[in-house]
Amino acid sequence: MKTATVKIKEKETPAVITEDEQVVDITAAAMKNGSAYQVPASMIQAAADGEKFWKEAKNLAEWVLDNNHSDCVYPLEDVILCAPVPVPQKNIMCAGKNYKDHAVEMGSEADIPDDPIIFTKAPTTVIGPGEGIDTHPVVTNEVDYEGEIAVIIGKGGTGIPKEQAADHIFGYTLVNDVTARDLQHKHSQFFLSKSMDTFCPMGPWIVEPAELERKDTFLETYVNGERWQRAAMSQMIFSVTDLIAIISRAMTLQPGDIIATGTPAGVGKAFDPPRLLQPGDEVVVTAQGLGRLTNRVKPSL
Amino acid sequence: MKTATVKIKEKETPAVITEDEQVVDITAAAMKNGSAYQVPASMIQAAADGEKFWKEAKNLAEWVLDNNHSDCVYPLEDVILCAPVPVPQKNIMCAGKNYKDHAVEMGSEADIPDDPIIFTKAPTTVIGPGEGIDTHPVVTNEVDYEGEIAVIIGKGGTGIPKEQAADHIFGYTLVNDVTARDLQHKHSQFFLSKSMDTFCPMGPWIVEPAELERKDTFLETYVNGERWQRAAMSQMIFSVTDLIAIISRAMTLQPGDIIATGTPAGVGKAFDPPRLLQPGDEVVVTAQGLGRLTNRVKPSL
Repeated sequence: MKTATVKIKEKETPAVITEDEQVVDITAAAMKNGSAYQVPASMIQAAADGEKFWKEAKNLAEWVLDNNHSDCVYPLEDVILCAPVPVPQKNIMCAGKNYKDHAVEMGSEADIPDDPIIFTKAPTTVIGPGEGIDTHPVVTNEVDYEGEIAVIIGKGGTGIPKEQAADHIFGYTLVNDVTARDLQHKHSQFFLSKSMDTFCPMGPWIVEPAELERKDTFLETYVNGERWQRAAMSQMIFSVTDLIAIISRAMTLQPGDIIATGTPAGVGKAFDPPRLLQPGDEVVVTAQGLGRLTNRVKPSL
Repeated sequence: MKTATVKIKEKETPAVITEDEQVVDITAAAMKNGSAYQVPASMIQAAADGEKFWKEAKNLAEWVLDNNHSDCVYPLEDVILCAPVPVPQKNIMCAGKNYKDHAVEMGSEADIPDDPIIFTKAPTTVIGPGEGIDTHPVVTNEVDYEGEIAVIIGKGGTGIPKEQAADHIFGYTLVNDVTARDLQHKHSQFFLSKSMDTFCPMGPWIVEPAELERKDTFLETYVNGERWQRAAMSQMIFSVTDLIAIISRAMTLQPGDIIATGTPAGVGKAFDPPRLLQPGDEVVVTAQGLGRLTNRVKPSL
């Protein structure tokens, strides 16, 4: 089961993406069949509804397809997919150096963290699938990609034990944690180098946790069609449930919060010579079941 | 001119605080005098209105006082002052080591930054004047205070030149950038150590920029009545306008964004032996014209 934020008739709304990649407008469906369920107007509200949202959305999509209500269905290519959470209500939280090989490529064995490294990206960084990544040439010469799997929090909480962390996952999506490498150390803390406008492509949709967790998913990043990153989720140093437990120890997590779980080895800066992003480059982040997040670097002016 | 978010009849609303510390309910006043100005329902909206808000709020407050509309006026002690921006729309941005003596007390001359160090605190950290600071004893043994002056952004923008940065300031307030010192380096990036619930006392109100800028304001922090921090704003390494220019170079600033401008020397960790916060301690952050932000550390359970 997949949900996306789509733009239908100029309005951004959560929708269902079916197995054969049709888009079901569940808001229209609920009005049509008189459902008692108030379909959420935003993905943050959907995340707050959690399992109830998945169940009701599934029922509505089935009703539409079973009864051929074609006015509630759109081919995927006819709608604009937005970032699943177009305007996060706080910064996106990100785990740094959460794959051993990436920690080593950015330094040495000594850089493998004993405790999660958590930094944030401003909500203004978020763009949707297909939108362009700015190179900000006045500010940086080293724009790099970082393909990542991100968790969207459903039920909020503080002091969530690792054993219960799975109950707080609304779903998973993909992000590209775009980074200005030259500013990452210049400003000592990572925030500014990670927070330039357009530096967080997100999407294309959110999948139900069960769909991802039933296999060991591989995450891959392609630049101009060539695979530059590949790792299994099981290679994370801190698992998704570790991250939720540690982050929430003294900080309340809220529905719709986003945690990017770290990037594997193979970022551009680590190649010799470095393969940093250039105007016109196409970056695809993909993982089994999570679809493909494709963004192009904007041409230089 | 000062504005605060106050709780009147169970509703949080921006209000005017007069010179003699009376609270004017400008929403009630606007309804009464049929003002064409739509008084903003939140401080983020007030910040978006910027100068217009200050002008209209001033007119409404004067009208109330000149005409003795006492039903729109409350003694300060009869209302609850909330944090001026009770629910920020993104993380609070903070400048690290922005006073030379503090950089040195936390390390050495080598720690004086050449470029601003910017990190963030989660919006869930925010508490108002008088609310209790949690010690989170399960997670940390080293809770420390950092008195700071914070800027609230009015007009948003990207690539704001330093010369125009002042036009983007809605006003100033005080924050206490409470920090778990033992986690600050353990997690490498500062975010988690700064983002525990209750770790951002803010208030008591926002003052118009002109009021602060006409003199070199001194910032002070008192713990249990004893002064432990004192510095002039002019001692900042990166001035407020520097910070706005540098932060906005490639990241869009939005109305209501909050930038905490750094803490002077005299944090608890830097004393020998360290003077970390203990249950029951009272922390007061104060600056000329900005009032007093008082919070007590919650007693241990």
